[in-house]
Amino acid sequence: MLLHFTKMHGLGNDFVVIDLITQRYRLRPKDILLIADRHFGIGCDQVLVVEHPRNPDVDFRYRIYNCDGSEVEQCGNGARCFAKFVLDKKLTGKRKIKVETSSGIIELGVTADKQVRVNMGKPQLKPADIPFQAEATAPSYNLDVDGQSLSLGAVSMGNPHGVLVVNDVATAPVLELGPVLEAHPRFPQKANIGFMQIIDRRNIKLRVFERGVGETLACGTGACAAVVAGQEQGLLDQSVTVTLPGGALLIEWRGQGHPVMMTGPATTVFEGAIQL
Amino acid sequence: MLLHFTKMHGLGNDFVVIDLITQRYRLRPKDILLIADRHFGIGCDQVLVVEHPRNPDVDFRYRIYNCDGSEVEQCGNGARCFAKFVLDKKLTGKRKIKVETSSGIIELGVTADKQVRVNMGKPQLKPADIPFQAEATAPSYNLDVDGQSLSLGAVSMGNPHGVLVVNDVATAPVLELGPVLEAHPRFPQKANIGFMQIIDRRNIKLRVFERGVGETLACGTGACAAVVAGQEQGLLDQSVTVTLPGGALLIEWRGQGHPVMMTGPATTVFEGAIQL
Repeated sequence: MLLHFTKMHGLGNDFVVIDLITQRYRLRPKDILLIADRHFGIGCDQVLVVEHPRNPDVDFRYRIYNCDGSEVEQCGNGARCFAKFVLDKKLTGKRKIKVETSSGIIELGVTADKQVRVNMGKPQLKPADIPFQAEATAPSYNLDVDGQSLSLGAVSMGNPHGVLVVNDVATAPVLELGPVLEAHPRFPQKANIGFMQIIDRRNIKLRVFERGVGETLACGTGACAAVVAGQEQGLLDQSVTVTLPGGALLIEWRGQGHPVMMTGPATTVFEGAIQL
Repeated sequence: MLLHFTKMHGLGNDFVVIDLITQRYRLRPKDILLIADRHFGIGCDQVLVVEHPRNPDVDFRYRIYNCDGSEVEQCGNGARCFAKFVLDKKLTGKRKIKVETSSGIIELGVTADKQVRVNMGKPQLKPADIPFQAEATAPSYNLDVDGQSLSLGAVSMGNPHGVLVVNDVATAPVLELGPVLEAHPRFPQKANIGFMQIIDRRNIKLRVFERGVGETLACGTGACAAVVAGQEQGLLDQSVTVTLPGGALLIEWRGQGHPVMMTGPATTVFEGAIQL
C-alpha cells in the first residue's frame, strides 16, 4: 500500500514519523529496514509510529524502531517530534499529551514559543534498574577498561546510560571509547555513552555514542542522563543548557524523586508517501 | 513554496529528482545543501533537475548538483533515474530521449524489461581532454604517489577518471589512495578514482572514490571509464558486466570513435513535498 509519512528532526536527530491511526498497515521488520535506509529507502535514525493506546488513560501509543529494525525504549528528540506531529496532524487538540511507550508513560507539552517540553520520567539510579553491575548506588563508579580505570556515572532514562566527564568534548575519544563502554560487561543490556564537558554549573557540552547506532548529533535521553549524573556528582545546578553537536536543549531536574524535563525544538522537513 | 520531488536510486546511488517544467522555482545553493542533507533535509548523493532545454533539438535540460552544492557534469546512475522519471511523470511519451547536460547531449532509452540504456557519449582519451597531464595518449600512465609508482588508466566520460587495476577490490586501499589520487597534481580538475578487479574478459568488480563525494555504492561513469581503460589495456571484451557494491551494470563499448552504452536499473523510492 501507499504509506504516508512525515520526515522530522530534533537537532538533526532525524525521524520518519508514521501515523497508524488514520492509516492501517502492519509494519514488518523489512519495512523498517527499508524505511531507515538512507540510500535505498527514506533514511532516518529512527522510525516513530503513532498508534491507538492500549491503556485508556493515555492519548497515544508511541513506538520507536532503530534503523536495525529493533524496537527501543525511549528517545527524547523523537518525543518532541512526536508531540509536534500529533498536534500538526490534528490527531489531538490537547497541548499536554500523555503517551504510552515501551518504557512507561511520558507526558509531552508544547510551549508558547512552539518548543516542546517533555516530561522524560524519573531517572533510575539503582544499579539493578539501569541495569549496571555494582554493589550499591553511587554518584560515580570506577570502571576497568583495557587495564585503565575510568570514573563513570550510570543512569537509566528508560534506557541505560554511562556518563564520563571529559576536559574537552572536541578531542574526547568518543569513537574509540564509545563502542568499548557501550558493550562493557558491567552494562548487561549495553548502554549509551555520554562524554560531558562542564562549562559551568548551568552549561555543558555533550557528545553521545548511542547504543546500536554510533555517535549521533543530539541524544535527548543522553542529555538528561548527563545532567542527572552531573547533579549527583555535585557539578551542576537544577537547570542546565546542554549543547550537543546538533544544537541546544534545556534540561531541568529537581533531584531524586522528580522527573527530568527536557525542552527543545522539533522541525518538520517534508511530507512523503512510499509504496510498501 | 511547496516543492514536489521524487526520491530515486540507481544501485543505491541516490537522488532527489525535481521537475522544474511543471513547477516554477529557482533553486538556490542553500536549497541544494538543505535538500541533500541526510539529517536536516531530504538526503541524497545528488540533486537532479529537469528543465526545459535551451537547445530546440533535444527534449530536456538535465542538471546535476552534488551534495556540496556544486554543479557537476555527468552521472550515469542519475541519467537512468532521469529517464525513468520523465517517462513516469509523462513529461514525454518517447522511449528514446535526448538530453542536454553541462557536458554535452546524451541519449537515454528504456528497454523492454524496464532497464534504462544510456548512451554515455564517446570517452575522451587525449590527456588534454580529460584533463590529465601527460605528453601523449597511452593505455596507462605511471603516476608517482608518495614515492611509489602506480599504473593508472585515464579517461574522461564528461568528467575525469583514473582507473587502477587491483588484485582484490575487497582489500583495495580505496579510502587511503582515493583521496590522494583524486587530488593528484596531474589531474588539474581532480578526478574520480576507480579500483578495478578483473574477474575475466567479460566481468569485473569495481569500487569508485568519487570526486567531491567519497566512496559510493555505484558510480555509473566510473563503470564506463573502467571498461574503456580495461579495453585499452587489452584486458576486456566489448561487453562487460561491472559489479559495484550497489549492484551490476552492463557496459558496452565498440572501441574508439564509438559511444559507451550503459544498461542498468532505476528505482523510484517515494514521492515527497518540501516547503522551501
